[in-house]
Amino acid sequence: MDSDNHGHHHDHGDGVSDYIKAVSEYRKTFASKQDVLDKTPDPAVKEMILHMEQIGCDTAFDRFDRQKPQCSFGLAGVCCRICYMGPCKITDKSPRGVCGADADLIVARNLLRGLAGGVAAHGMHAREVILALKYAAEGKINLPIIGKDKILKTAAQFGIDTKGKTIEELALKIADILLEDIARTVPGEHRTIQACAPPERIKVWRNMDILPIGAYHEVFEALHRTGAATDGDWKNVMKQFLRCGLAFVWSGVVGSNIATDSLFGIGRRSTSRVNVGALKEGYVNIAVHGHLPVLVSEIVKQGHSREFIELAKKKGAKGIQFYGICCSGLSAMYRYEGVIPLSNAVGAELVLGTGALDLWVADVQDVFPSIMDVAGCYKTIVVTTSDSARLPGAEHYAYDHTHSNMDQTEHIARKIVSRAIESFENRRGIPVFIPPYEVDAEIGFSLEYVQKRFKGMKPILKALQDGNILGIVNLVGCNNPRVIYEKAVVDIAEILIKNNVLILTNGCASFPLLKLGFCNISALEKTGIGLRSFLEPDLPPVWHMGECIDNARASGVFSSIAVEAGEVIKNMPYALVSPEWSNEKGIGAALAFRLLGINSYHCVHAPVQGSDNVMNFMLTGTKESLGSTMNVDVDPEKLADKIISDLKKKRKALGWK
Amino acid sequence: MDSDNHGHHHDHGDGVSDYIKAVSEYRKTFASKQDVLDKTPDPAVKEMILHMEQIGCDTAFDRFDRQKPQCSFGLAGVCCRICYMGPCKITDKSPRGVCGADADLIVARNLLRGLAGGVAAHGMHAREVILALKYAAEGKINLPIIGKDKILKTAAQFGIDTKGKTIEELALKIADILLEDIARTVPGEHRTIQACAPPERIKVWRNMDILPIGAYHEVFEALHRTGAATDGDWKNVMKQFLRCGLAFVWSGVVGSNIATDSLFGIGRRSTSRVNVGALKEGYVNIAVHGHLPVLVSEIVKQGHSREFIELAKKKGAKGIQFYGICCSGLSAMYRYEGVIPLSNAVGAELVLGTGALDLWVADVQDVFPSIMDVAGCYKTIVVTTSDSARLPGAEHYAYDHTHSNMDQTEHIARKIVSRAIESFENRRGIPVFIPPYEVDAEIGFSLEYVQKRFKGMKPILKALQDGNILGIVNLVGCNNPRVIYEKAVVDIAEILIKNNVLILTNGCASFPLLKLGFCNISALEKTGIGLRSFLEPDLPPVWHMGECIDNARASGVFSSIAVEAGEVIKNMPYALVSPEWSNEKGIGAALAFRLLGINSYHCVHAPVQGSDNVMNFMLTGTKESLGSTMNVDVDPEKLADKIISDLKKKRKALGWK
Repeated sequence: MDSDNHGHHHDHGDGVSDYIKAVSEYRKTFASKQDVLDKTPDPAVKEMILHMEQIGCDTAFDRFDRQKPQCSFGLAGVCCRICYMGPCKITDKSPRGVCGADADLIVARNLLRGLAGGVAAHGMHAREVILALKYAAEGKINLPIIGKDKILKTAAQFGIDTKGKTIEELALKIADILLEDIARTVPGEHRTIQACAPPERIKVWRNMDILPIGAYHEVFEALHRTGAATDGDWKNVMKQFLRCGLAFVWSGVVGSNIATDSLFGIGRRSTSRVNVGALKEGYVNIAVHGHLPVLVSEIVKQGHSREFIELAKKKGAKGIQFYGICCSGLSAMYRYEGVIPLSNAVGAELVLGTGALDLWVADVQDVFPSIMDVAGCYKTIVVTTSDSARLPGAEHYAYDHTHSNMDQTEHIARKIVSRAIESFENRRGIPVFIPPYEVDAEIGFSLEYVQKRFKGMKPILKALQDGNILGIVNLVGCNNPRVIYEKAVVDIAEILIKNNVLILTNGCASFPLLKLGFCNISALEKTGIGLRSFLEPDLPPVWHMGECIDNARASGVFSSIAVEAGEVIKNMPYALVSPEWSNEKGIGAALAFRLLGINSYHCVHAPVQGSDNVMNFMLTGTKESLGSTMNVDVDPEKLADKIISDLKKKRKALGWK
Repeated sequence: MDSDNHGHHHDHGDGVSDYIKAVSEYRKTFASKQDVLDKTPDPAVKEMILHMEQIGCDTAFDRFDRQKPQCSFGLAGVCCRICYMGPCKITDKSPRGVCGADADLIVARNLLRGLAGGVAAHGMHAREVILALKYAAEGKINLPIIGKDKILKTAAQFGIDTKGKTIEELALKIADILLEDIARTVPGEHRTIQACAPPERIKVWRNMDILPIGAYHEVFEALHRTGAATDGDWKNVMKQFLRCGLAFVWSGVVGSNIATDSLFGIGRRSTSRVNVGALKEGYVNIAVHGHLPVLVSEIVKQGHSREFIELAKKKGAKGIQFYGICCSGLSAMYRYEGVIPLSNAVGAELVLGTGALDLWVADVQDVFPSIMDVAGCYKTIVVTTSDSARLPGAEHYAYDHTHSNMDQTEHIARKIVSRAIESFENRRGIPVFIPPYEVDAEIGFSLEYVQKRFKGMKPILKALQDGNILGIVNLVGCNNPRVIYEKAVVDIAEILIKNNVLILTNGCASFPLLKLGFCNISALEKTGIGLRSFLEPDLPPVWHMGECIDNARASGVFSSIAVEAGEVIKNMPYALVSPEWSNEKGIGAALAFRLLGINSYHCVHAPVQGSDNVMNFMLTGTKESLGSTMNVDVDPEKLADKIISDLKKKRKALGWK
């Protein structure tokens, strides 16, 4: 076992684990709202939670407390609701479900279904952007294709002959390949994997027989295999788990990344104000919340147009200001001036509680339905924009199920900005409560920026080899009220940079790092001497890479340095840390890096404590095959120590001091 | 509400249903093993359960008892394990999950995910057969294409120009269309729906905006939409539920049916021995269990070959005999001589407990992992044949994940038959216990047979109009230990035929009807006078149509009679009854008929009692839009009365006496 604190337990004679004890111990570590108030690192969060209490508005922290004690069977993964002969659960009294499934099988099936949900989430994100790229290339929608460099680079990777081809023709070919990788059903090679994955990995995955046919297919097969009395072998279920992991990476993450960068460009390094203190009173304030970039880009473009700014001013506003919640905000942030990141998904209610927002654009994923209650208190208009996600009480200006109205993107965006201005007028006199915390953050890091900045990867490799950089860690993931909000991310970041670990970040976990100054040059004060000497004078110790699909940027950096070193990735001093993960995509994100050969580290248990076999498979079961392990410790400091110790082991094996 | 006994309940002020009481009442109705011993209709089942008890082998009935009391939250559908901030459950104390999801949303999401599993199950079944049709047409595998009539008929439906085309060329075009309907991602029409669905229905579905893009896509979208904090509107979730229902029908069921009939022909009307009493001592006894026809067909073909029969005789056997468990047995039964149906999935353990079987071929779906324990007691070799479903302890001679070895079907089949003969030799002296119950059954009914037998649909329509036939009911579905094994199916069948209702059947529910003589001419004694006069002298009152995807045959009959009558289906005196359903496909099967406008009837509650809104949506919410309702009564007799009363209402509205 790679973990000191994952709740070790032993088998009974009949194979039923004594998981109840492990889960009870685990549950004791769950945070309470009071813990959050006492210890969450961002003072704005504390003030907003107290403010919400005063106005009588529930938050996720209240609801989490009220859900206590959480069900042991669910936590341990041994509750089965897959068919309707149940529900079944594994206990000493009932070691098998009605069909005969044991704890191993039930835990494995539940986990695979969770990952399948994660693949579908990133996959639908990918599909919308790829579809937009295709339609833009075909001239069906009026969307400029900005990322010419990305298209040329990708075309080369895919072996597309670029001679005499327009950017649109190349974009169309790329989009069609990416869509084929999502939707293939007649068995064939996954073309993005063949074109973009390290050859060493392709060999490993082929030997393990885990290469996916396509994202749709593997998700479909995951549901089929885990359906009533189909796969009876937990090991075979976990094989499909790994296969879905590859679909998650190469269609969900890399496919999204290629299409997004192709359409909108890579974005640029810049500096942004961050946190609720940056909320601007007197402006038409619009928050974008979710994940999909196509419509959000147009909304931001329209909101920045002279026409709408003048209209806003005519209505008494100082201007129009955009804010970012969760990933679509981050994606927009580094592509357009002045989209101010405010909060991850768990904190969205708190941001709404400031009363400062006129309109809130929500698309898909991590948009808590509870935001409607808070929005209602402040007459903030919530607009939903996807057929996949509606909210009762929200206004719906959206793409339809078949994206048949994607050519009306501009029209929809204009409607939304107009509604924001109307809302500004209607909301005059609504009281505003804005905690005065804001900070500057350096944003927009990417492989391309790093390559340009350092003229190749050699200087980073050299700093790694010299020991100025101990290792590189991708610190990401959602938040989870089981742990004290944003504290694990911050605690771990502090320890890592002090120990000269360079941090990459994106998505929900990046918000506390943005808000608490880790993306600011001043954070160099908190780093070890080596790391500081490498970064000075103008680089922060945490490099912000964008939204959650920008894990592709992190793996690009990891991969490029390994190539420079002539090493395979699994030998490099890298780690993936998602301390506070909570959703189905989080399972996939950690697995994605383990599939590359990079260890993952977490403060949250997956629901595998009910099966020693599945738990051990997750923790150390792929150490030989993939070269990576999963590591769990509910204590962030211990987890950070473990990361550092593991990075040092990698360095030693490489012969680096 | 259309149900007297579905556990009615009322909202509290905060919208939390008082579902605990409803679920407690429901749980009280759950059968016990003793109830099964006392009241299950097939004496062979009783004897086998007692025999299993004597040899100390658990069955599903023991395990079901041991799972009592089943979790109220799971039964009611209000337990959410979709993200890992939970598990959450809806109670008075906690009316919202951590994300803010209420009971309506949680119940709806769970139900949609269940259906998505059902679409994946039937969909993967469809895909394997369609892939085999494609490869056969391309000459990649050595499989004759027998169903020439089906291919010509389907080609005409799809508007394929048949002039000068070979059967193989047409088969390839059909296979490619069916695969496209499974895997489409760029929005476009679902071609099977456009070609095969009643135009009135297409209009209804288009108006409801529930036409699917493709089966893969809608399942993917179902997972996406129900993922952590995506769709916050239970109504929008249920819209996707309906959309997935159409994917279930037109890719899963109809796609499977077209490909299976195209490859293997429609099968023929014949008479078969049925039930464990037909087990032949002294033969090499091979059971086929599961759903996929391609390999099973070859296994049966090889087992019927002179070469293997002679080999079996050389080893001291009287011959080789095949038996059918669950659907693949039924599918084989009416295409090949002498495949004897023995049991549905829940009874598979009991059949193994006879000790009479030398080898058991298991593919996918409804293959309880518990069969391995029983097989172990009797040295019965279990062979798994699909990459989707392995069983620890089974021998694996199978298609791989990419079906790259489908061209080795004959080789795999020969290996399996050889292993059966070896097993026969190794099992000499194993004690056998065979309850002496067997009966003849008329099998192999299809739309094509009915059309031929009656020279069109007019005679059936006339019998309906005259009142000799009161109505036509498709009586199908799995079994569920919540109700007394096979009793609900039999009780309902008895009441229906006594009231002159003609019954169609397939799949698991058809086994008790086969075993208890309902498919035998002698059952005419139990029918009303009108039905008897229509069926005499040579037709039984229950028409056996095959495996569960042969719901397509039933809907074909329903549709053809409606066309003959010049009526839309929803006005006709039809019903779908799946009294004992239990798996995810069962949700889809009932929904499939409701989507056609046919009411569905059940003795098992779906997990919707925790949400009045979702429950009402399921029961009566589509009465206006689709013209159909769902009806639940745990009492089979009351349910049968309700069916008859509803059929009479339909007749009255049509002006039929």
